[in-house]
Amino acid sequence: MATHMTPDEFRRHGYAVVDWIADYWSTLDQRPVTSADPPGTVAARLPAGPPEQGEPFDRLLADLDTVIAPGLTHWQHPRFFGYFPANTSGPSVLGDLLSAGLGVQGMLWSTSPACTEVETVVLDWLAELLDLPARFRSTGPGGGVIQDSASSAILIAILAALHRAGGGRWRGHGVERAYRVYTSTQGHSAIEKAVRIAGLGDAGLRTVAVDPETLALDPAALRTAIEADLAAGLVPAAVVATIGTTSTNAIDPIPAIGELCREYGLWLHVDAAYAGSAAVCPELRWSHAGLEYADSYCFDPHKWLLTGFDCDAFWVADRAELVAALTVLPEYLRNAATESGAVLDYRDWQVSLGRRFRALKLWFVLRWYGAEGLRAHIREAVALADRFAAWVRADERFEVVGAHPFALVCFRLRPTGDDDADDVANAELLSRVNATGRAYLTHTRVGGRYTLRLVVGSPYTREEHVAQTWRLIGDTAAALPSRPS
Amino acid sequence: MATHMTPDEFRRHGYAVVDWIADYWSTLDQRPVTSADPPGTVAARLPAGPPEQGEPFDRLLADLDTVIAPGLTHWQHPRFFGYFPANTSGPSVLGDLLSAGLGVQGMLWSTSPACTEVETVVLDWLAELLDLPARFRSTGPGGGVIQDSASSAILIAILAALHRAGGGRWRGHGVERAYRVYTSTQGHSAIEKAVRIAGLGDAGLRTVAVDPETLALDPAALRTAIEADLAAGLVPAAVVATIGTTSTNAIDPIPAIGELCREYGLWLHVDAAYAGSAAVCPELRWSHAGLEYADSYCFDPHKWLLTGFDCDAFWVADRAELVAALTVLPEYLRNAATESGAVLDYRDWQVSLGRRFRALKLWFVLRWYGAEGLRAHIREAVALADRFAAWVRADERFEVVGAHPFALVCFRLRPTGDDDADDVANAELLSRVNATGRAYLTHTRVGGRYTLRLVVGSPYTREEHVAQTWRLIGDTAAALPSRPS
Repeated sequence: MATHMTPDEFRRHGYAVVDWIADYWSTLDQRPVTSADPPGTVAARLPAGPPEQGEPFDRLLADLDTVIAPGLTHWQHPRFFGYFPANTSGPSVLGDLLSAGLGVQGMLWSTSPACTEVETVVLDWLAELLDLPARFRSTGPGGGVIQDSASSAILIAILAALHRAGGGRWRGHGVERAYRVYTSTQGHSAIEKAVRIAGLGDAGLRTVAVDPETLALDPAALRTAIEADLAAGLVPAAVVATIGTTSTNAIDPIPAIGELCREYGLWLHVDAAYAGSAAVCPELRWSHAGLEYADSYCFDPHKWLLTGFDCDAFWVADRAELVAALTVLPEYLRNAATESGAVLDYRDWQVSLGRRFRALKLWFVLRWYGAEGLRAHIREAVALADRFAAWVRADERFEVVGAHPFALVCFRLRPTGDDDADDVANAELLSRVNATGRAYLTHTRVGGRYTLRLVVGSPYTREEHVAQTWRLIGDTAAALPSRPS
Repeated sequence: MATHMTPDEFRRHGYAVVDWIADYWSTLDQRPVTSADPPGTVAARLPAGPPEQGEPFDRLLADLDTVIAPGLTHWQHPRFFGYFPANTSGPSVLGDLLSAGLGVQGMLWSTSPACTEVETVVLDWLAELLDLPARFRSTGPGGGVIQDSASSAILIAILAALHRAGGGRWRGHGVERAYRVYTSTQGHSAIEKAVRIAGLGDAGLRTVAVDPETLALDPAALRTAIEADLAAGLVPAAVVATIGTTSTNAIDPIPAIGELCREYGLWLHVDAAYAGSAAVCPELRWSHAGLEYADSYCFDPHKWLLTGFDCDAFWVADRAELVAALTVLPEYLRNAATESGAVLDYRDWQVSLGRRFRALKLWFVLRWYGAEGLRAHIREAVALADRFAAWVRADERFEVVGAHPFALVCFRLRPTGDDDADDVANAELLSRVNATGRAYLTHTRVGGRYTLRLVVGSPYTREEHVAQTWRLIGDTAAALPSRPS
């Protein structure tokens, strides 16, 4: 009968898994980026029910090749340019492996002190690397914590904002008043979702107009919206501003927004999920101007800083406000360390009670690469994106859409004047490029028009991969049905 | 300068990490279960800031021994009996390692079909293993999904309940009415937190009285509470019932609660975070009677089913209701598969947008152990807990508190009549036992009185570990200041 895996069995099978991953990474370039199989293909390869008897490990590993790999979108692929990348790295995977092996649960400081203390210190390191305002450091009243994603970070920022806006009533009595949260029309859908989860309803979110050129939030429109809501007896509570929107990497004017938040007493959360990583490079920190106004800030090392999903780094300027909003203390969690007030209990900084030792992978990444290694990684991606944009610009069939301050380039076929036909052509272009399996890009709409997005991020992406993809796009465009010009 | 870890470097360092974990597991028994170091000890061992240059991997790994391990509470230790255990296993760790190496992001079916399809199938397998009602299978209108924890599962169940109770208004307009959620006085603190996050405030939670003997929710009291709220113009929305409460493993009467929920149109969520794993054994399934009434149900394979944190298995009877409550669809997430309606997009089943391939570790565990291996694991823990309870009962200095249907035993020094003195003595006993580092237990209060909890769960726990711990408890009790008898 199946029994627990012995340490020696673990050693043997563990080596095999490490080898499998090394081989997988080495052969990514030769794999199609996405699967062409229709829905249900993977499920159909699996037995209808669980096995009664245990199976040998070799059979599990073999199924990785036959069942799993053919059904994946390979996010680590050097020609994956979709969404925002979610890139990992060797040191991250090994830090995560250690976390899994240790299997500690860091809900309280006392349930594994190292799990909490390493996280606090590493988030301070990261604040230093990005040159974040001093108020976010744990050495003052602020501090950092790892969330699973920017979605959760936005949610808890909004909860803290409601706690503040409600003057203490929210915790006890919930959403009794018509609280309002503001973001630009380009804010991430996670903001809408967080506002809904927090019980404000979709009506609780005000999407503020943007500058039509830069797609950055228009502070005058924000002021107008706040004033209108106040006049209507509603309760402005928070602004979620974005550095590097998902659609086009627009950068909201944080200093102007921050002034408004200060004037009206609103919580300012800054979501730099993707672009925050860029701030490891001094020459890209202009994007973070005004961050000293923020009550909270987050970015995702799991997007562009070589740390595997899930790792969102979230800071608050006043941790006591956050803890006051979220804490609940039943008897079975009481302990001397908590009562001493000398420790952080990260369960009070997040939605869930339990938490993994996610700081290990981040600690490993920061140490393996060092600051200069991380900067080199960001610069390489920005340079490749610049090169791609130059190729697009030099081709009269295409146009680059807007600025590309980081490593996202928006582009499309040059407009013909027939918007609908252009949208169809661009969608068809994307569909055909992706159908080859040789590259993967995604899309957005800019000014209502279908637009392709290419984001460089994978540590395996070299100039040749970007060049191959550009040739593929050009060749595919050439084969499209001809359009009026 | 530090560069990306090559596949060959990953192989070499990966073997070293696998060896480190195997050695760690082999030596757990010789380690103190907890650290005696005061707050700040681990942080003081770390440099003040991040390194400018990258460091060799060997130095990272060495710090595991010198910086990290001495600051851990070893949750996988054979003499860790606190909280609920969060036990992992070799196959889980290796499945998780593969997930980290693949680095795919399963927010949408289309962003990695295998990530979604394996999860759907494995949750169907698990439903079969626990003999859950057919309505939870994905082959009908229901389905399962992995959440990070039961906290999140409770939260999204409440959100779906509000969507239903609001008759469609909640999504658009939020918490406009005084919705109420019910649980027993013994319900987990995560319920209070979820109710607060959902914008109902602490007043939104009604804690219903329990039977003083069994500590199970009293259905008559539940009916009274619902009726009173209805009479007051409030809006009952959901009941969160528990199979195996955290404090004492009380089992709420699901059939009676289910009848009430049906009568009043309330959403019934059943939280079996810990005890759900027991249902793999037919002889323990009596605990799940009445589950056919539930709209949603969850349990944590990361507690007692050998799957590493985070892995909460959550099912809904009607997935369309859940998706309707949570979905938000921006342009950049639109895709043909979603629009076809032929696929599940798990982003709509959870708080966050992004998600890891967590099903891999669960799939590996189910296959490595097989149904019979998992049943053996549960039975071993229950048998060891029974043995411990028998030793407690046979010692006139102690008493077992309440039933112990699973592997949690509540016990304390036999009462002297002086409650306060008894509480002090029991707290002192626990404190002294834990201070030895030779075992780790936690506490609760039962009927207001300080009570010790011992939970068996680690795959490394053998009878000798329980016996050593019982001797330690007895010896420690003997050395306590004498009490009146």
